[in-house]
Amino acid sequence: MKKLLILIISTFSFLCKAQPTKTVLTLMEKQQNEWNNANIENFMSYYWKNDSLMFIGSKGVTYGWITTLNNYKKSYPNKESMGVLKFTIIHCTQLAENAIFVIGNWQITRKNSIGGHFTLLWRKINNEWVIVADHTS
Amino acid sequence: MKKLLILIISTFSFLCKAQPTKTVLTLMEKQQNEWNNANIENFMSYYWKNDSLMFIGSKGVTYGWITTLNNYKKSYPNKESMGVLKFTIIHCTQLAENAIFVIGNWQITRKNSIGGHFTLLWRKINNEWVIVADHTS
Repeated sequence: MKKLLILIISTFSFLCKAQPTKTVLTLMEKQQNEWNNANIENFMSYYWKNDSLMFIGSKGVTYGWITTLNNYKKSYPNKESMGVLKFTIIHCTQLAENAIFVIGNWQITRKNSIGGHFTLLWRKINNEWVIVADHTS
Repeated sequence: MKKLLILIISTFSFLCKAQPTKTVLTLMEKQQNEWNNANIENFMSYYWKNDSLMFIGSKGVTYGWITTLNNYKKSYPNKESMGVLKFTIIHCTQLAENAIFVIGNWQITRKNSIGGHFTLLWRKINNEWVIVADHTS
């Protein structure tokens, strides 16, 4: 009985730990779908709506949700330029109750296809998982 | 008295939180100095000596301490090519007792100077802070 109790507790504890990474990976799938529906605003809803959001890209570091949205809009002005986005997760680890680190590959299939890698820091803020830092190269 | 006690506890708690980030920033300064002494092996000693170390660079994702060392040696075969390295820390945050996330800028001053940005995940493993993932672009 004691062993069974330990097993139940460990299994539950494992599930509790695994659940947030599953949640984040599901959010990334939804985010990818929003891009493929050519809806940049909805795609951006997975980012922290805050001036401290950090995006590290070819232009260096830019701050803020609005700036990130505008940069996406500038780089991808229409459905054709947005192409079809595919995320491939390489590594996903929960660092704390409220922090998950994700490494992955991104590919945009279009006339002149592009792609690269990203590292994302997701944090649980106000009970919601959001990207607070995105390094895309 | 109660207020004083709260103040002492909060100050101590703040210092406890701040100390690991200070430690990591000091390690990065030492790491930078090792580069500037043209000692790639010592520079590499700040990375996790494990096959699971992840380096995300222009070649995509590469794994392992040895591979990372060899890639650095290939890209920077001598003191002249290594130039003078300067890290500028943009953001440093402790995510957990054993996890610190750092965003920064790197510049190598030499004949054809180069530079860019990095995001690092530092983890405390066996009581030692080491870089487990480095995204450099």
